Amino acid sequence: MRASRFFISTLKDAPSDAEIVSHQLMMRAGMIKRLGSGIYTYMPTGLRVIRKVEAIIREEMNKAGAIELLMPLVQPAELWQETGRWEKMGPELMRVKDRHGREFAIQPTSEEVITDVVRGEIKSYRQLPLNFYHIQTKFRDERRPRFGLMRGREFTMKDAYSFDRDLAGMQASYKVMFDAYTAIFTRFGLKFRAVAADNGAIGGTGSHEFHVIASTGEDAIVYCPTSDYAANMEAAEAMPLAAERAGAKQDLVKVATPGTTKCETVAELLKIDLKQTVKSIALTVERELEGKVTKENWLLLLRGDHELNEIKVGKVPGLSNHRFATEDEIREAYGTIPGYLGPIGARQPVRVVADRTVANMTDYVCGANEEGFHLTGANWGRDAAEPEVADLRNVVEGDASPDGKGVLAIERGIEVGHVFQLGTAYSEAMKASFLDENGKPAPLQMGCYGIGVTRILGAAIEQNFDDKGIIWPTSIAPFELVLCPMNYDRSEMVREETDKLYASLVEAGVDVIIDDRGLRPGAMFADWELIGVPYRVVVGERGLKEGNLEYQGRRDTEATAVPVAGMVDFIKGKLAQ
Amino acid sequence: MRASRFFISTLKDAPSDAEIVSHQLMMRAGMIKRLGSGIYTYMPTGLRVIRKVEAIIREEMNKAGAIELLMPLVQPAELWQETGRWEKMGPELMRVKDRHGREFAIQPTSEEVITDVVRGEIKSYRQLPLNFYHIQTKFRDERRPRFGLMRGREFTMKDAYSFDRDLAGMQASYKVMFDAYTAIFTRFGLKFRAVAADNGAIGGTGSHEFHVIASTGEDAIVYCPTSDYAANMEAAEAMPLAAERAGAKQDLVKVATPGTTKCETVAELLKIDLKQTVKSIALTVERELEGKVTKENWLLLLRGDHELNEIKVGKVPGLSNHRFATEDEIREAYGTIPGYLGPIGARQPVRVVADRTVANMTDYVCGANEEGFHLTGANWGRDAAEPEVADLRNVVEGDASPDGKGVLAIERGIEVGHVFQLGTAYSEAMKASFLDENGKPAPLQMGCYGIGVTRILGAAIEQNFDDKGIIWPTSIAPFELVLCPMNYDRSEMVREETDKLYASLVEAGVDVIIDDRGLRPGAMFADWELIGVPYRVVVGERGLKEGNLEYQGRRDTEATAVPVAGMVDFIKGKLAQ
Repeated sequence: MRASRFFISTLKDAPSDAEIVSHQLMMRAGMIKRLGSGIYTYMPTGLRVIRKVEAIIREEMNKAGAIELLMPLVQPAELWQETGRWEKMGPELMRVKDRHGREFAIQPTSEEVITDVVRGEIKSYRQLPLNFYHIQTKFRDERRPRFGLMRGREFTMKDAYSFDRDLAGMQASYKVMFDAYTAIFTRFGLKFRAVAADNGAIGGTGSHEFHVIASTGEDAIVYCPTSDYAANMEAAEAMPLAAERAGAKQDLVKVATPGTTKCETVAELLKIDLKQTVKSIALTVERELEGKVTKENWLLLLRGDHELNEIKVGKVPGLSNHRFATEDEIREAYGTIPGYLGPIGARQPVRVVADRTVANMTDYVCGANEEGFHLTGANWGRDAAEPEVADLRNVVEGDASPDGKGVLAIERGIEVGHVFQLGTAYSEAMKASFLDENGKPAPLQMGCYGIGVTRILGAAIEQNFDDKGIIWPTSIAPFELVLCPMNYDRSEMVREETDKLYASLVEAGVDVIIDDRGLRPGAMFADWELIGVPYRVVVGERGLKEGNLEYQGRRDTEATAVPVAGMVDFIKGKLAQ
Repeated sequence: MRASRFFISTLKDAPSDAEIVSHQLMMRAGMIKRLGSGIYTYMPTGLRVIRKVEAIIREEMNKAGAIELLMPLVQPAELWQETGRWEKMGPELMRVKDRHGREFAIQPTSEEVITDVVRGEIKSYRQLPLNFYHIQTKFRDERRPRFGLMRGREFTMKDAYSFDRDLAGMQASYKVMFDAYTAIFTRFGLKFRAVAADNGAIGGTGSHEFHVIASTGEDAIVYCPTSDYAANMEAAEAMPLAAERAGAKQDLVKVATPGTTKCETVAELLKIDLKQTVKSIALTVERELEGKVTKENWLLLLRGDHELNEIKVGKVPGLSNHRFATEDEIREAYGTIPGYLGPIGARQPVRVVADRTVANMTDYVCGANEEGFHLTGANWGRDAAEPEVADLRNVVEGDASPDGKGVLAIERGIEVGHVFQLGTAYSEAMKASFLDENGKPAPLQMGCYGIGVTRILGAAIEQNFDDKGIIWPTSIAPFELVLCPMNYDRSEMVREETDKLYASLVEAGVDVIIDDRGLRPGAMFADWELIGVPYRVVVGERGLKEGNLEYQGRRDTEATAVPVAGMVDFIKGKLAQ
C-alpha cells in the first residue's frame, strides 16, 4: 500500500467529548469518525484493524469446528415474543415497524433467530453437535453511549451458538469454545484473563468472561496469583475473614451516637476500628399468596468496611425478588430511622442474614434500633439469635482464595468476550427439540459465545499506548511496517531502494505501507507513532551510502542501523517473535 | 473442508412461495433460509458464495484505487433531511426512533453519510481525487419483496462514492469504476452487458447499468450486435422508422368505427396494417402562476404498434411534471371519449407531440375527436399542423441502431451493478466543498457506484442451471471441487487415497470438500449437483485398482477416467481455464 493512495487523516487534538484514551487516540489517528451518539464510521485505518481482528476470530472459530453463516439484522418481533425477550429487553432493544406495521427488532444478539433456524433443520441426535456463528453488525440502544467503541450503540460482534444432545455434550462444546477464545486472544497479542462469571439462573460454573487487562478497565476482576482461580467481582466467592468465631469479651452496651449514621463516623466517634462495626441493610420482599400481598422484612449484615454484592444477594434463598426497604417500612419494622438499624431488638419479625465474615465476629458494634444509639459488644447467640449466613460481599485484595491456594488480587479489565452455558432456556421456550437414540424428543442443550469485535480495538489501545499514540500488537495493527523514505520524490537512490525493499517485503508477506506523501520527517513519524504501526524503517541517503537502513520498533527509544541486504530477514525475524 | 464438519441441508422440493428458479434452487440447496418477508439467513453454503463475490469485488476495487471504509447502518435523519431524501424516499426508507425519540434511517444507500464524512475531511483540491467504498448490509422496505435474493428487503451491497475537483476528473473516476466493474463481472464468470441508462436530472451518458444476461431477467436491454451500442429500454434511443416523410396519397376521410377504441381493432375493422394507425395519449400539465393553477392539454402520438416510454416523456421540455388526463378532462378538451382522440379538430388548444416515427408517417389513421369515428388518410401539414417531434417510444427488435452501425437486438437482463455520475447534487445540498487552486470554494463532483452483492447469487443461478440444480461459475462456487469417496468408512484404500489427494489439492490451493457423510452415491451426487459445485472427483476401489479416479465437470454428461498421479495437475489445468 502507498500512503498517497490510502486515506490518512490525523488530528493534533482529540474532540472534547472523547473521555478515555482509546477514544481520544482513535479519533486523533483518524480511525473512527462519529456519525451520531454511539454510532461511528470506521475509517480506512480503523477498518483494517477490524478486518484483522475478524480474520483471527474466523480462523480460530473454523479450526474449532464452528460453522459460519449470516443471520439478518432485522428480525421479526414474533421470535422475540416466543422467548419473552420482546418485553424483557426494554428500551435497549431497538424496535422498528415496516410499511405494513409489522414489528421487528434490530438485532442486539441472535439467540432467537439461530434457535429458529436450528429447530427447522435438526431432527435427530445424529446431526449433533453443531456450532454456528456469524460476525455481524449489532445495535443496542444504550441509555448513555460513551467511550467511543467501548460502549457504542452500533457495533460488530461475533456470536456463536452451540447445540448439543445433552449436558455433557454442551459442556464439551463450551470447553472447545473456551479454548478457541484463549487461542484468539493470545493471537491478538493482548494480556487477558478468563474469569468465572455469574451464570444467572443456570448456576454452576457455566459462564466465563474474557477480559483485556487495563488499568482503565470498567470491571474489577479477581484472581489468585498462586493458583488458577479467577472470577469477576460479581462471581468471586468471599471467604469468612476469620475461620471460627472467638469468644465474647465485652458486655452489650448501648452508647449514644447522635447524628452518626454511617459505620465510618461511628468508628471515629467511638475510637474503634471500622472492622469492628457491622452495617445493616434492610430489604423488603413482597409475596403474593392467594391474591393477598404480604411483606417480609429482611436485614443483611456486612462488616463496616465491606461492600454489598447485589448479585449474591439475589441468590440467597428467598431473596430472588427483593428490593431495598423504604424509610416508612424501616420505621415500621425497626422503630427507628436508617443508620441505626441492627439485628437486636427490632419491632417486627425480621429475617437476619449475616455475611460469612459478620457471622464469625465477636464484640461487634451495630445500630440499636433506636435513633441516636448504637450497641457495642454485641455477640451472636448471647445478644442476638444465630443469623442465617451467606456470602453477601465483594471480595477485597488479600482475601483468601476460595480454592485455598493463596490470597486474592484484584485488577481492572475490559470485557471483550463471554462464553455462556445456556442450557435449554431458549430451546424449551421455542420448542427446539430433536429425537434422541430412543426416538424420544428432547430439548437442545445450547451454549452461546460472544466477542465484541469493535470493542477489541478500544481495549487493545487502553492496554497499549504511550504519549505519542497507539501501540498496536503486530497481529492486529493496521499495517505491520511503515517505510519512511526521506526525499522520496527528489532522491533517485532513495526511491529505488525504497521501491525494491517494498517489493521484497510484500513478497515476504509483510503488510507494509510506504509513506510517499512527501511530508517532513517529524510530521511523518508523528503520524505513524500516533496510528501505532509496530515497525518503522527509514530509508535515507546518508544511511544508504553506508549500506544501512534505520529500523525502529514502536516501543523502542532509538533506531537501529540494519544492513539493506538483511532487512527483510530482520523484519521476518521480528514478525516471527 | 469435510462435509461431516460442515452443514449441508438439501430439500427435494422448493417451498411453494419460491416463484423463480434461482429462489427455488437456493432454497433446495440449503443456501438461504427465510426469516421473514424479503429477509433471509445466509446458510453456510450460501455465505461461502457471498464471501467469494465480496473478495473479488474488494480486490478489483482496491486495484482501482478505491479505499474501503465502513459506514453505519443506522443513520441520523438530519443528514437525510439535508438532501430532502427523508421526505422523497417514501415508505421504502425504513425509519426508526431511538429511546430519546430521535429519528434514524436504516441505510438503503450511503450518499448522505459519505458526503458528511468527506465534507469534514476534505479541505483542498490537493486531497482529490478520492473514492471510498464499503460492503454493508442494506435495507429497503420493498412494497412486495419477492424472488428470493433478487428483490429482498435486507441485502448486501457494495457502494462506492468518488469525489473530484471538476467534471473531467469525475468522468475519469467514472471510467476507472466502469473498467473495474467490467473486470469484476468478468471474474465472476458471468455473461453480462453494460448498458447506458437514463441519468435522471443530470443528463449526458453519465450512467450505466451492468446486467447479467438471463432469459428470466426483469429488464429488457437493447444492444447492437454489430457495434458497441447498448442501453436499457428506458434509455435506448428510438430512431424514426422512415428517414423522411413521403408525399400524401390519400384524402382525409371520416369513417365510422363504433365501439372500436383500440388501434388493433380499428386496423382489423378497416383491414389495414396496424403500422398505419396512430395512437393518441392525452396528458395534462398543471402549472401554478401567481397562485393560479392553469391546465395545459398535451397529446402524444405513437404508431399503433409502438409502446410509450414514460422516461422519455418526462424529458420532453414542458412535460417534466405531467400526468395522464382524466376522462372528464379528455371530454372537455377533445369533445369525445378516450379511444377516439386525434391531432385533428380538438375542442380546446392542444400541444401535439409526435413520436419521431409518427412525424414521418403519411396517410395515417387516427381518432376523429368524435365518438364512434376515426379519420383515414391523415397527413401532417395538410390536415394537421406540423407537430412537435420527440423520441417517445420503446425501441423494438430490428430498429436502426442510433450509432448508425446496424440494427438493434433485445435481450433480458438482471441489473446487478450501476455506475452513476452524480455531479454536485449531493455536495451542493450538503455544502461539501473544497478550495481549488485559486483558493476559491467549489462543490465536490461526485460519482456513485453500486453492486448488489447478494443479488449476484440469484442472477448467476438464473443464468447457470439445469434440471439437476445450480451450475456455479468456478470463481464464485461455494467449493471448487467435491471429492466423493465410495465407502470412505469401510475401504482403507479409498480413505487413504482420498485423504492424500485432499491434502495435495489443498496444498495446490484448490477449494475442496470431501463428502465423508457416508451417503449412497446417488444421494451424494444429487446433493452436489443441486448445490452446483463445478468439479467432482469420485474415488472408488474399482478405479483405484486401475490407477484411476473419475472426474466429471458439472456440465459434462459423463465422467472421465484420470490417472491418480495426474489429478492435481488436471484440476489445476481446469481452474486455469
